[in-house]
Amino acid sequence: MNRRILLNCDMGESFGAWKMGDDALAMPLVDQANLACGFHAADPLTMQRTVELAVRHGVRIGAHPSYPDLVGFGRRHVDCSPQEVTALVLYQLGALEAFCRAAGTQVAYVKPHGALYNDMVRDDALLAAVLDACALYRKGLPLMVLALADNRRELEFADAADVPLMFEAFADRAYLADGQLAPRRLSDAVHKEPQRILDQALAIAQGEPFADIDGKPLQLCADSLCVHGDNAESLAVLRRLRALLDAA
Amino acid sequence: MNRRILLNCDMGESFGAWKMGDDALAMPLVDQANLACGFHAADPLTMQRTVELAVRHGVRIGAHPSYPDLVGFGRRHVDCSPQEVTALVLYQLGALEAFCRAAGTQVAYVKPHGALYNDMVRDDALLAAVLDACALYRKGLPLMVLALADNRRELEFADAADVPLMFEAFADRAYLADGQLAPRRLSDAVHKEPQRILDQALAIAQGEPFADIDGKPLQLCADSLCVHGDNAESLAVLRRLRALLDAA
Amino acid sequence: MNRRILLNCDMGESFGAWKMGDDALAMPLVDQANLACGFHAADPLTMQRTVELAVRHGVRIGAHPSYPDLVGFGRRHVDCSPQEVTALVLYQLGALEAFCRAAGTQVAYVKPHGALYNDMVRDDALLAAVLDACALYRKGLPLMVLALADNRRELEFADAADVPLMFEAFADRAYLADGQLAPRRLSDAVHKEPQRILDQALAIAQGEPFADIDGKPLQLCADSLCVHGDNAESLAVLRRLRALLDAA
Amino acid sequence: MNRRILLNCDMGESFGAWKMGDDALAMPLVDQANLACGFHAADPLTMQRTVELAVRHGVRIGAHPSYPDLVGFGRRHVDCSPQEVTALVLYQLGALEAFCRAAGTQVAYVKPHGALYNDMVRDDALLAAVLDACALYRKGLPLMVLALADNRRELEFADAADVPLMFEAFADRAYLADGQLAPRRLSDAVHKEPQRILDQALAIAQGEPFADIDGKPLQLCADSLCVHGDNAESLAVLRRLRALLDAA
Repeated sequence: MNRRILLNCDMGESFGAWKMGDDALAMPLVDQANLACGFHAADPLTMQRTVELAVRHGVRIGAHPSYPDLVGFGRRHVDCSPQEVTALVLYQLGALEAFCRAAGTQVAYVKPHGALYNDMVRDDALLAAVLDACALYRKGLPLMVLALADNRRELEFADAADVPLMFEAFADRAYLADGQLAPRRLSDAVHKEPQRILDQALAIAQGEPFADIDGKPLQLCADSLCVHGDNAESLAVLRRLRALLDAA
Repeated sequence: MNRRILLNCDMGESFGAWKMGDDALAMPLVDQANLACGFHAADPLTMQRTVELAVRHGVRIGAHPSYPDLVGFGRRHVDCSPQEVTALVLYQLGALEAFCRAAGTQVAYVKPHGALYNDMVRDDALLAAVLDACALYRKGLPLMVLALADNRRELEFADAADVPLMFEAFADRAYLADGQLAPRRLSDAVHKEPQRILDQALAIAQGEPFADIDGKPLQLCADSLCVHGDNAESLAVLRRLRALLDAA
Repeated sequence: MNRRILLNCDMGESFGAWKMGDDALAMPLVDQANLACGFHAADPLTMQRTVELAVRHGVRIGAHPSYPDLVGFGRRHVDCSPQEVTALVLYQLGALEAFCRAAGTQVAYVKPHGALYNDMVRDDALLAAVLDACALYRKGLPLMVLALADNRRELEFADAADVPLMFEAFADRAYLADGQLAPRRLSDAVHKEPQRILDQALAIAQGEPFADIDGKPLQLCADSLCVHGDNAESLAVLRRLRALLDAA
Repeated sequence: MNRRILLNCDMGESFGAWKMGDDALAMPLVDQANLACGFHAADPLTMQRTVELAVRHGVRIGAHPSYPDLVGFGRRHVDCSPQEVTALVLYQLGALEAFCRAAGTQVAYVKPHGALYNDMVRDDALLAAVLDACALYRKGLPLMVLALADNRRELEFADAADVPLMFEAFADRAYLADGQLAPRRLSDAVHKEPQRILDQALAIAQGEPFADIDGKPLQLCADSLCVHGDNAESLAVLRRLRALLDAA
């Protein structure tokens, strides 16, 4: 493991009177905070306060843009055109950066949320649309995508758009042979046992193979691990993972 | 008239399938376009296209943020706290600037819309909240406010926040003695006759007094005139006004 | 032609300050008004006024529910579960009926809008979900669906849900051989010539065959023709069609 | 105490992925559930499930309409016209009733939420607008308002609109001498000690005087007590209150 792997976490997902997660507890444990931008979660004041929290903890801020779907938390595909996607990513990216500017920092990367994230994997036009938004916004602004066994498709599109990529992997999800996440409807799709999660995290961090859903070895090249901190259980695992990686 | 007075116009007020105004006709005639940011009008794609239109015509782009009130077009007071107002102005300002960045420019000033604009005149905390948003966003970003007979209040607040002000006046509105706009419920509140509008515009442009609603002389010191281009009649007046000012 | 064919028209599609169509001109010419319910268009006051307009002209009121997609005017598929669809149709149906009650009438039928209407044709679970909403709301409340060369699928689902169907056809659209509408991307998908529209309307009204997009004869059994009245041209055709059918 | 006093509780206030309260625990303890209708909280599926929960427990369902203000949870005044208020109350009332119909019941009363509830107390036109909505919707549909030392104003308006009133009081709030709730900014505005809440509840239930915020006796004539069940503490008090009233 030449380069330290980072921990990224979805945050700032409260909305008005509704609270979600406890960002104050998770923020000190992560390196990158993916912040909701108002389309699937977060209102302007929530965004401002979460940005300030991230800055206090020296955590890099990523834009976490979504399809316009508050009631569905951005988990539902909305049939937007590529032009609409470029525009809605730009809109959310700029909105978040306003709070970053006010706090003396800037957006460090873009990681689409929910259905938009998933759609990038299978829809070339959407992937290109999101890359366009990154390139139009600021030269060198990275897009975070799913680390696969083979990311040539993503790299080709990103090169064409002149956008750097960051690759993320999941310690608590089972993988298919090609590095896609096992669908959640499968019974083994999500790892429950903390030790299994920690083992998979360490393997990914060290660039070593781990078992896919069929027990076959899978090797991923990832810059960041997506972690969760929205309940006591996930926070406990996150604390152990943080300690493990800091010790590695 | 030492300095050329500018013409500013609310634009980008379509929303999805609903069209409002014809920005393509008015844009070549104005100097400053106040662009809706999604809270009272405009969707991301409308914003992107209107920014591109403004850039093609060399028109300066102002953010036109609003209370969150699509159905009321931002004309209704929403009882937001000053903290909420600072946050929602930042949010909209940043969202608009994303499209400016994509088009190679930046937001040149901020002019709140509708009820938020009116509330700044009478509510010190809201005025300070909007000024805070400007100051937090970018040093030197001007706020556009209503030119009054006496703008000492606005200047004091703006100095405290270190925000430059731009003053706007209206050629088609009747004024009270103190430079407030005559309420629209008064029968003479809005000038209908084109010549009257042009005369008032020229007086303001030249820093000369004109008649308030009671016929008394009123002198305003304004940087910009707010004009309209959303129908054939207002466009005709706007064309004559543009010619008049260009000739002056 | 034993039974008089009806004319139905989408109406009440303004939203706040944005106007769409001129319902006052089209309302006297139609039999059935499909009224937007707030999810793709219309606000409560627009709904109330459009219901009152329909009642003044003796026009039957249909609920025109949509996916939640104001900015996309309900034309974009939103990946809702069948349970969500049943709930959102019920919600919109009840909201519209409140204005009907206030005006002394009730919702006469349900015709889903845009992407939801199209999705019913290909997705059995969505068709069943919409039928469920109708059945749960009021026994005997009809659902309006697309008249096809063979509507056995729709009739089977409707029988299972104990919901009556109404079939609608289009005078200004080209048809595929099976009675599906020719996709709009085809150059001949929409009839432009008024006489062609009137001829197709009369054929459908009289239960006679007309030419599909390949010139082959197609016969549809329809209760209602979907018409448009949102511009001068479509209103002119609508006036001629109304006269033609009244004379038939 | 001739008539049994009822317990009413705001419920159905989750929204999409965001949960609020635990209606399953509170529902068995109350008589009346004030259900959010989508403008300050609740989505269609949440509404349907909460209605079904209420029906299972034999709890009467009240519509809890709000200004359109999801992000502010309906706690912020929105400057709507009386016509807009009548229309938005009708809209929400009808939407909720759709789920009641589907569950074999109907809306039993209307209790406006948050800022709209408060505004009815001081704004005659808004009170009349809400009463209009009730009267237009269904003859005999009651409006729930704040029990004051003197409710003649409310009774006069209600008589004029031919709408029955229900009066509610609060066991956990301090009162001003005239029966208005003590503003929340006052330190003693909300009772914290369970016994104090239970004592005030019993006094109101029995039509006996209790101490206002200055210690002076205040007597209120109430049909229902507003209770809370959104956390462990309030649920514990609610359980004791339910037992106390059942024993009385």
